[in-house]
Amino acid sequence: MEVLKTSQISEAFPMNGGDGRYSYANNSIFQRSGIESSKAIIEEAIVEKLDIEKLPNTNPFKIVDLGCSVGPNTFIAVQSIIKAVDLKFKSQAISVPEFHVFFNDHKTNDFNTLFGSFPAERRRYFAAGVPGSFYTRLFPLASLHFVHSSTALHWLSKVPIEVVDIHSPAWNKGRIHYTNAPIEVKEAYSAQFVKDMETFLRARAQEIVCGGLMVILVLGVPNGTRPTQSIPCLLQDLLGSCLMDMAKMGIIDEAKVDEFNSPMYFMSPQEVEALVERNRCFSIERVEVMRHPDCDAQLLSNTIRAVMEPGIRKHFGSEIIDELFDRYTNKLVDSPSILKSGTNTSLFFLLKRNGMHQSLSVTDH
Amino acid sequence: MEVLKTSQISEAFPMNGGDGRYSYANNSIFQRSGIESSKAIIEEAIVEKLDIEKLPNTNPFKIVDLGCSVGPNTFIAVQSIIKAVDLKFKSQAISVPEFHVFFNDHKTNDFNTLFGSFPAERRRYFAAGVPGSFYTRLFPLASLHFVHSSTALHWLSKVPIEVVDIHSPAWNKGRIHYTNAPIEVKEAYSAQFVKDMETFLRARAQEIVCGGLMVILVLGVPNGTRPTQSIPCLLQDLLGSCLMDMAKMGIIDEAKVDEFNSPMYFMSPQEVEALVERNRCFSIERVEVMRHPDCDAQLLSNTIRAVMEPGIRKHFGSEIIDELFDRYTNKLVDSPSILKSGTNTSLFFLLKRNGMHQSLSVTDH
Repeated sequence: MEVLKTSQISEAFPMNGGDGRYSYANNSIFQRSGIESSKAIIEEAIVEKLDIEKLPNTNPFKIVDLGCSVGPNTFIAVQSIIKAVDLKFKSQAISVPEFHVFFNDHKTNDFNTLFGSFPAERRRYFAAGVPGSFYTRLFPLASLHFVHSSTALHWLSKVPIEVVDIHSPAWNKGRIHYTNAPIEVKEAYSAQFVKDMETFLRARAQEIVCGGLMVILVLGVPNGTRPTQSIPCLLQDLLGSCLMDMAKMGIIDEAKVDEFNSPMYFMSPQEVEALVERNRCFSIERVEVMRHPDCDAQLLSNTIRAVMEPGIRKHFGSEIIDELFDRYTNKLVDSPSILKSGTNTSLFFLLKRNGMHQSLSVTDH
Repeated sequence: MEVLKTSQISEAFPMNGGDGRYSYANNSIFQRSGIESSKAIIEEAIVEKLDIEKLPNTNPFKIVDLGCSVGPNTFIAVQSIIKAVDLKFKSQAISVPEFHVFFNDHKTNDFNTLFGSFPAERRRYFAAGVPGSFYTRLFPLASLHFVHSSTALHWLSKVPIEVVDIHSPAWNKGRIHYTNAPIEVKEAYSAQFVKDMETFLRARAQEIVCGGLMVILVLGVPNGTRPTQSIPCLLQDLLGSCLMDMAKMGIIDEAKVDEFNSPMYFMSPQEVEALVERNRCFSIERVEVMRHPDCDAQLLSNTIRAVMEPGIRKHFGSEIIDELFDRYTNKLVDSPSILKSGTNTSLFFLLKRNGMHQSLSVTDH
């Protein structure tokens, strides 16, 4: 079997744990809106694309949520998948299987909070937590029927090394992201994305049974969008400008800002389509560009804080966090044009595992 | 499928989490000695009793450690099982499967520490954490090949209600355990043990494939041992006497001591044999009474603290803990006769799942 390499993967960016004021659990409404919008599409996908008669070993029916963080969104997503699969079995008069659900995230994720917040209602499934990067193999060969990943795959496995290399043309001085950066920076991020997505698809191709489905919901951009037209990109850029303001005022060291980069890449449908095609184990059954509703500055600031605080704290220390995000909220309030001028979109992909697993032993191990 | 009832089960007694001075992770050498002694027997069991050609769906080969706590003992046990199974496959010239290992404990267990302490060496298995009481169903039907549980099954699912009922003849006034208590107290504990063990065996009978093995290593007593002859019992009794000393001095409320009971039952081989026979889904392949080496007062005190502190803290508050365990250590030092006069034993059981799973749908669902 393939040797696991979890320890080699950067795990610097867990979400804020616990259930406090700035926790991810209490600041993930933005992410929830994506899950709610995709619910209907997932139900349709299961009705139209999941051929339960041809799927192997469907009892138990195995589902994983990759990058689950600490709920409640992960439970909402899983419940809606189970409900739709259950209906599908019933509609074909096949006896409904047991469900085994795996909740995956980095080993630094707050699994204690996740496990403590399992819905109080009687659960219809057996649950397990799987610690580790989804850029490695996490499951045995051909063992999953339905893979779900929401607002997770825009996280790269690591910051591309070139952007923190002072001798590289991609050195990203004075910024924390490729938005508004020289083309070399964008290319370094893009190359890291390609490498990560290839690894991701290769691992999932081994884990998903033939005929199994994978839903990927991710912050991304429509084809042909420039970073400066995309709200997720602009939000990163604005956070970088707050850090630079603080550096200029001597509150933090400017060199520390140069060393810090956000490991997020906002992909386009075309980029994903090309990588899926190259991988050859999946067909793309559906792609949607989903527009997020407007949301106010404070909510956005809290959302970004919940997902980025641990990484920022680790690099800059705890003492700057409150001031940084106060500044950030203020800048957001003062920049309504940023929030209106661009696109604030998620991408939805439905992939189906095709072909045979045997061939993998030659080409993909 | 059977509805899960985790929320109804008492989860009052996790081990001490983290990796601090009194953590379970740093105070489980006593438990380790049991695992080390059973290693050779487990290897023999796998050589002699695991018929891999008849086992269904062995790829992946699925292992669970029930009541795993936070390591490192759980990793040691799992590694030795995998090593033996691997050898078995190789010795029969069958290609070695992938391994999927599940680490189970109460949802209040410190899974974050467990996941953070996975061995740094490249792991040979896919891992998952399973939160929930092993007195409920935790896994899909017929999905496990090897079940391991070490120093866990002497924990009852809850304190028997009669012993805290002031109107019951089993009211356990002035003690925290059945050692040195009236017969009614022992009977209440014993009845709770029978109920729990029946539930445990029923759940595992559904989860383990036919031909699958279950190893249970547990603090227990040889047949015919009185509680006052057993070190685990005497250790509970001595802790109760420290609490009563503190109550008499007005440091804690005596009524609080009356309300507190340790949910531990130290079973005998005969009791287990009778319950396995009644369950009818397992054969007992091996029983061993394993004598622990002597260990000193401080080590024993720390061991008991690591496993009992969370429950005691929850009931009495944090402020008494240090004094309580100082007193406890002193009493242990002053009572060498206690440490020498009795039996300090673990029991080892090897069970094999027999029969067919179909029949369960009539009798056990």
